[in-house]
Amino acid sequence: MFDKLREECGVFGIYQSIGQPSGQPNPAEIQAAETAYLGLYALQHRGQESAGIVSGDGGQMYSERGMGHVNDLFTPPKIARLKGHVAIGHVRYSTAGKVSINEAQPFAIKCGFGQLALCHNGNLPDASEARRQLEYDGAIFQSTSDTEVVLHRIARSRRRDLIEAIVEALMFDDGAFSMLFATPDRLIAVRDPRGFRPLCMGELEGATVFASETCAFDLIGATYLRDVAPGEVVVVDSHGITSNFPFPPKPHTHCIFEHVYFSRPDSIVFGRSVNKSRHLMGKALAREAPIEKTDDAIVVPVPDSGVAAAIGFASESGLKFRFGMMRNHYIGRTFIEPQSNTRHLGVRIKLNPVRDLIEGKRVVLIDDSIVRGTTSKKIVKMVREAGAKEVHMRISCPPTSWPCYYGVDTPTRNELIASHNSVEQIREFLEADSLGYLSLQGLYDAVGDGEQKRFCSACYTGNYPTQLGNFGETSHEREELTAVPLATD
Amino acid sequence: MFDKLREECGVFGIYQSIGQPSGQPNPAEIQAAETAYLGLYALQHRGQESAGIVSGDGGQMYSERGMGHVNDLFTPPKIARLKGHVAIGHVRYSTAGKVSINEAQPFAIKCGFGQLALCHNGNLPDASEARRQLEYDGAIFQSTSDTEVVLHRIARSRRRDLIEAIVEALMFDDGAFSMLFATPDRLIAVRDPRGFRPLCMGELEGATVFASETCAFDLIGATYLRDVAPGEVVVVDSHGITSNFPFPPKPHTHCIFEHVYFSRPDSIVFGRSVNKSRHLMGKALAREAPIEKTDDAIVVPVPDSGVAAAIGFASESGLKFRFGMMRNHYIGRTFIEPQSNTRHLGVRIKLNPVRDLIEGKRVVLIDDSIVRGTTSKKIVKMVREAGAKEVHMRISCPPTSWPCYYGVDTPTRNELIASHNSVEQIREFLEADSLGYLSLQGLYDAVGDGEQKRFCSACYTGNYPTQLGNFGETSHEREELTAVPLATD
Amino acid sequence: MFDKLREECGVFGIYQSIGQPSGQPNPAEIQAAETAYLGLYALQHRGQESAGIVSGDGGQMYSERGMGHVNDLFTPPKIARLKGHVAIGHVRYSTAGKVSINEAQPFAIKCGFGQLALCHNGNLPDASEARRQLEYDGAIFQSTSDTEVVLHRIARSRRRDLIEAIVEALMFDDGAFSMLFATPDRLIAVRDPRGFRPLCMGELEGATVFASETCAFDLIGATYLRDVAPGEVVVVDSHGITSNFPFPPKPHTHCIFEHVYFSRPDSIVFGRSVNKSRHLMGKALAREAPIEKTDDAIVVPVPDSGVAAAIGFASESGLKFRFGMMRNHYIGRTFIEPQSNTRHLGVRIKLNPVRDLIEGKRVVLIDDSIVRGTTSKKIVKMVREAGAKEVHMRISCPPTSWPCYYGVDTPTRNELIASHNSVEQIREFLEADSLGYLSLQGLYDAVGDGEQKRFCSACYTGNYPTQLGNFGETSHEREELTAVPLATD
Amino acid sequence: MFDKLREECGVFGIYQSIGQPSGQPNPAEIQAAETAYLGLYALQHRGQESAGIVSGDGGQMYSERGMGHVNDLFTPPKIARLKGHVAIGHVRYSTAGKVSINEAQPFAIKCGFGQLALCHNGNLPDASEARRQLEYDGAIFQSTSDTEVVLHRIARSRRRDLIEAIVEALMFDDGAFSMLFATPDRLIAVRDPRGFRPLCMGELEGATVFASETCAFDLIGATYLRDVAPGEVVVVDSHGITSNFPFPPKPHTHCIFEHVYFSRPDSIVFGRSVNKSRHLMGKALAREAPIEKTDDAIVVPVPDSGVAAAIGFASESGLKFRFGMMRNHYIGRTFIEPQSNTRHLGVRIKLNPVRDLIEGKRVVLIDDSIVRGTTSKKIVKMVREAGAKEVHMRISCPPTSWPCYYGVDTPTRNELIASHNSVEQIREFLEADSLGYLSLQGLYDAVGDGEQKRFCSACYTGNYPTQLGNFGETSHEREELTAVPLATD
Repeated sequence: MFDKLREECGVFGIYQSIGQPSGQPNPAEIQAAETAYLGLYALQHRGQESAGIVSGDGGQMYSERGMGHVNDLFTPPKIARLKGHVAIGHVRYSTAGKVSINEAQPFAIKCGFGQLALCHNGNLPDASEARRQLEYDGAIFQSTSDTEVVLHRIARSRRRDLIEAIVEALMFDDGAFSMLFATPDRLIAVRDPRGFRPLCMGELEGATVFASETCAFDLIGATYLRDVAPGEVVVVDSHGITSNFPFPPKPHTHCIFEHVYFSRPDSIVFGRSVNKSRHLMGKALAREAPIEKTDDAIVVPVPDSGVAAAIGFASESGLKFRFGMMRNHYIGRTFIEPQSNTRHLGVRIKLNPVRDLIEGKRVVLIDDSIVRGTTSKKIVKMVREAGAKEVHMRISCPPTSWPCYYGVDTPTRNELIASHNSVEQIREFLEADSLGYLSLQGLYDAVGDGEQKRFCSACYTGNYPTQLGNFGETSHEREELTAVPLATD
Repeated sequence: MFDKLREECGVFGIYQSIGQPSGQPNPAEIQAAETAYLGLYALQHRGQESAGIVSGDGGQMYSERGMGHVNDLFTPPKIARLKGHVAIGHVRYSTAGKVSINEAQPFAIKCGFGQLALCHNGNLPDASEARRQLEYDGAIFQSTSDTEVVLHRIARSRRRDLIEAIVEALMFDDGAFSMLFATPDRLIAVRDPRGFRPLCMGELEGATVFASETCAFDLIGATYLRDVAPGEVVVVDSHGITSNFPFPPKPHTHCIFEHVYFSRPDSIVFGRSVNKSRHLMGKALAREAPIEKTDDAIVVPVPDSGVAAAIGFASESGLKFRFGMMRNHYIGRTFIEPQSNTRHLGVRIKLNPVRDLIEGKRVVLIDDSIVRGTTSKKIVKMVREAGAKEVHMRISCPPTSWPCYYGVDTPTRNELIASHNSVEQIREFLEADSLGYLSLQGLYDAVGDGEQKRFCSACYTGNYPTQLGNFGETSHEREELTAVPLATD
Repeated sequence: MFDKLREECGVFGIYQSIGQPSGQPNPAEIQAAETAYLGLYALQHRGQESAGIVSGDGGQMYSERGMGHVNDLFTPPKIARLKGHVAIGHVRYSTAGKVSINEAQPFAIKCGFGQLALCHNGNLPDASEARRQLEYDGAIFQSTSDTEVVLHRIARSRRRDLIEAIVEALMFDDGAFSMLFATPDRLIAVRDPRGFRPLCMGELEGATVFASETCAFDLIGATYLRDVAPGEVVVVDSHGITSNFPFPPKPHTHCIFEHVYFSRPDSIVFGRSVNKSRHLMGKALAREAPIEKTDDAIVVPVPDSGVAAAIGFASESGLKFRFGMMRNHYIGRTFIEPQSNTRHLGVRIKLNPVRDLIEGKRVVLIDDSIVRGTTSKKIVKMVREAGAKEVHMRISCPPTSWPCYYGVDTPTRNELIASHNSVEQIREFLEADSLGYLSLQGLYDAVGDGEQKRFCSACYTGNYPTQLGNFGETSHEREELTAVPLATD
Repeated sequence: MFDKLREECGVFGIYQSIGQPSGQPNPAEIQAAETAYLGLYALQHRGQESAGIVSGDGGQMYSERGMGHVNDLFTPPKIARLKGHVAIGHVRYSTAGKVSINEAQPFAIKCGFGQLALCHNGNLPDASEARRQLEYDGAIFQSTSDTEVVLHRIARSRRRDLIEAIVEALMFDDGAFSMLFATPDRLIAVRDPRGFRPLCMGELEGATVFASETCAFDLIGATYLRDVAPGEVVVVDSHGITSNFPFPPKPHTHCIFEHVYFSRPDSIVFGRSVNKSRHLMGKALAREAPIEKTDDAIVVPVPDSGVAAAIGFASESGLKFRFGMMRNHYIGRTFIEPQSNTRHLGVRIKLNPVRDLIEGKRVVLIDDSIVRGTTSKKIVKMVREAGAKEVHMRISCPPTSWPCYYGVDTPTRNELIASHNSVEQIREFLEADSLGYLSLQGLYDAVGDGEQKRFCSACYTGNYPTQLGNFGETSHEREELTAVPLATD
């Protein structure tokens, strides 16, 4: 409904030790899935379309997937069915209309290596070509997901060892993959050598846990140990934890948008507090695109993601910070606008201005991005109708001009307003009194990477760190892929 | 789950004009219920247990009620069944265990006056005695709700006119009632002479609308005209709008807690911006219970309700405002903590501190109330564990020491921590470094009523504006009433 | 979907003894509702629209009602909530469109006598007048059901004793009522002095049980003791069983259609085997409306209700009995014919001829009634299309010409094909080669009542045993009543 | 719940012609799935666990699968999503505990041949070995079903043509397969050379339809043309219908149990009326295992499947046919016996004797099979308790002594009572006064195959028509296979 880029996934994994002399419970009594459920609940913001957990009890694996929110899906009886000491889970977002249980992860299969489950945060840009080759070679696909390619490569590997097969399957894929694999008695975490997507590792009373963000550790009471390093393969089983770096090293290209929008402010991502980055973005924005300080000027965040940057902006500029827009948090995923409603509700379903604060004020709206511009335009209009004298829009990153192929759901280039409009043209479209973006250097500084060596900023620059085949300009391939809508159960 | 006082209800009503020469659609084509659905959606914060809408099309009435959230319950087919140009709706909160569809409003009955529906925000403290008398006189009750008493009085009235019967039924009830009645072709709004609960009146393209708060008008695009005045009876039908003041006038005693916590900050309630009141509460609190200004001191709201006061506090004190605690908004009503989870999740299900902001800081937490104290204690602990050097708790109203009998779900006096503990004792219980409450005069000033003539503050003072029979000290009666748990469908 | 008269209800009740020296379990551990669930399951044929059970545990009452079939509604958690040693239950049929949870019984109320529940098989023709008077006197109605009138009369009674109030409420109602009342610790069974509807009494391991038909006793393993006699009031409580006959005696007028169609053949109803009656109807029909015996003549029942009579017909006539039509038993209540299906499925959804049996044969179809004639016409056509040389229709009772006001859902007189057509005209409409009905005397003989003193046959004769006010000819009143469709939750 | 062998599946397929000059609607407007829904509804008796439909509109395919009954699953919105002019559907039975949406057919995949769907009635005994080989070769399995093996073989085929690949995949599989394949614009029907399972072909207003039994054609109004011949491959597409016989011919071995029990009596199966076969079984049984004709002797079918044979038995023996046992048809799939019910309900949930018919009689019970014997024993007991003087059990086929590997869910040999007990021992176990089975020759005669050349009777003789590897005696392999319970969504 709203004009945001969408993270495509969050992952969580847990391996609980069993059967040790110290009196650990036996696997049948352990429910790693309970902790996975809580972890996914904390990662819900990374994907609200579908969720799934696969567990293993040493002998077998159990799977529950469904459409919807984590706490709606995982009823106590479902969690109870997910037995065992190993569990991986996934939350997923997907574009409207591409909604299918077949796409929900983790994928669980049976192959020559036995039972195997996989969940994936990221995207493999080369997978569509590989998929065609695999289909030519007799592979059967159940979903439209490129993640399935990895499973086929593993199943077809001639390696005797599963870990070797996994490494082989991913060796030449220059894409984004923070992956968790589970077997009935092992948990394997893999992160691509560029480290596009986050993957954190923690410890919880002897159990090893993995999550896309540390906010999942906070909820379950786990301690954040470190990130799974770019290119690292971590295997956890009854013998303990082993780490390997089998992939050729590559420059790090962390997704800078995780700090701008995707991750929760209370998370540590890529080893850095997200809130800190956003606060500094706001401060830098105040310096780069200042607003004259007057008594009637207020800084208002577009909730919830604009809050941290807005506080930074207010702090740096000395303008007053005011919570001038309320968000309705009961909207859920099910809100349906009445069909015969002739007044289009637009953003009012979700946001309502606080007239008392806005009226007669010069309002500086702080948001984290403008994608198509349509929502921002409505917000500007709504704020103006609430009585604002002036509406100034400030964005805590540079103009989003290029689609992402590394695990973010972006519209085509043509749909990105900044791809073919100047800042002034966008301002005109928004009908704002002024519009300012944070500079790329300002953003790099804010995320603590002034040297610009660790982050991917392709969505702002078009400088994709990997070869993209036919993708680059048109994203034609990508769209063709997603247009295969078989099988919605 | 959380330690808050609970508003028991929100109401919404709409009457759409029909059949006028100017070419209005006929009632069969109008769906007032669509607008009622949106209005209730905007009032969802006033009650999440059950919701209902009753509509009328001139000839008949239609009803849909259910347990749960507005946007889950009112699917398009259900809304489509609610035909006609008149509609009233209700959202309801109720204490745990007292959950039953029989209690969901609006109540819809058939009686000598024909079909009649009623929804009620407030409470009638004298109703239990009246109920016993009515039962003795042969009345049948379907719910445990005292609201049903009003319907019986109306049904038994010897008045020939429904409006007169309604007035008669409420004439001697010195309680809190913001009520909406609907018949197949009329809408009647009634507010008690003291004006305990809010009731706003608006206009939407020729339709007349009523709502507990103006945020409902904002969503549907209606214009706020005025409040239904205390003691006023507004009747809307095909002849237009008529207003009467049939009840003996009484001193106004608006619920001050509407401004402290219940209402949304973007609403106008009792004719005053809620956000403005809260901002001033925060400012007054900063003056009354100041914190030494140091570089490492930050003001952190307990989200979401503490935000406005926290901004006021920061503004007045010059301390930094920081969003140091994140709230998980996906919690919904269905979160179930896994049974075998040995680590009690407590407030972490809902709140997580931003360690980067908290660590090494002197944290001033701003909240709107302390009821039992258990949640506040957990929050203090959580903030301290996130690295705070000091934790100072500030509450934007006086200590809540007395139960409410006018439509708020409060625990018994014994459970209210402030009823039998000094501020210092509460501080000790919370393990906070300091604790400060806003004074009663400070609160009156903040809501713009320095003269203390328009608001009820019984929950702070025990000075109940009405006679309470046996209720006063023990709330024994009230509990006995709610212990009649027949009939959960 | 099919053209049948519909029984409106079935009732079941159970009182389990508790707390006796012999070591009976205490009420909290008893679940009378489990047995009630099974009893209703066996009575499902008497009503498939809604079902409900109310139980009592000595202190309180518990209620579960819903739309649908017994075994879909009463999930284990729902049954578990129905605590206690007393339970009454109800299954209900209702005409399409009049579907509402508000109409589902048992009705459970709170009144001056405390908590009280009621379920009713039958109909009170005078209730609509009484309802108007009660509404005038201030009574509130929740449903369109006339049964509620009885509850209001009880609630308004000045008697000190509940049983006396119940008797008073029903004293002057010359209608059909087989009723079960429950309080938290009592079970009361009442049958009208005419004995219109059946009500059986049984014993199950010390518990006393009541049911509309004995097939409910068979399932739970109870022993059939006797019928509740016409005009009898049976009270079961901790003091044992007491019986009274407080009503003025009236001639018995059992519903003869219970034996023709409503009851299950394996039940004993009005003290007589239903199967035996039907078998004799078939035999008498063979004598009264014979078919020439040829080698190619077969007797085919319209399943399921025509089977017993068809066997009797075949036995008497010497014609071959063949199961020439199969019924699809998976149809359930949810079958929805695809919207764009241009071939109207009609009876084929439910019935399919066995071509191998039908082809080239003279087919004698045995059915139990013709209401509007539309379904019968389709069946005749279908059988002819399956290759029958001749199709002879035989009906095991006289032409149904008059609506019933004693608990059967009948169409208006005008809709009854036999009300304004001769047998020959009906035959023409059906396009059958011949058509024969059983004579009224033949029917009386078949049910063992040759003297015609114990049964009501108003649907065949129009001789209603009670005064019907305005009802008689037009059934106008009745339709007006059912046209008040408030409140579908 | 009941002691029957279970057919594992029913299939239905339809291809509607499009785009012809004669003004056929375009594929987007056609809903072949509507007809498939009706077809599956008529085949519901062949499988009640899960159902699915996959459709194709020339460009894409659409899939809906679920657990439960056809008319519960396929709501109008679901059917509406199944666009296009091609559709195949499947109903499935499965043993308790092996319930998973992953097993529900049709399977829909994407492979080198594009989108492909498959549903299968039958079983491939050699598939488990093939499955292991495929897994070794890198194939990924989603279900425990051997049907998936066929899909992998097709996907891996080097043939350029899909039909050739299908033939190749099935060429050497000496099992039972009545299969329907669908692509976005083709429908392919394949039947194994032995013709184990039925597969009928019909015509409906220019559309070509396939179904397991002709009763599906009756409902939709289609004309039965012929069977898909053993070994035949029928392809239907825009070019018309083509037929091929690519497989090496084998002796026909139709499943004789289709006539004994599985199929509906109103169906034509293997070119012969099922009702006719059953009637003749009953007649032969009366000759082979006669009962002395006395006035008090009655023939009673165990409903519903025993009816046709019972009528034949009565006809031949001259004994009276009586419907002495009633079946409760509301049982559905959801009946749950209350947990604390100490009286085990057993067969009474489903069957109730008509005491009036049974009492004092010599009862000849006609049933179609005895599997474990437990249900039969309960029935005998129940009939005796209803007052039968004698209970004689007659079975309309020989003793079932061997498990089936061709698509029937049978228990292991040890569980089959006839595998290790003489008829007299079984009679003793059942506590029947006498027990008689139909002879094998009698059965062959009844199905019109006196020469015993066209039917498989392995379940009676152990003479399996195919090589069974390790299966024969122990069915060990089969059980191991079904013990892989991954992935229940």
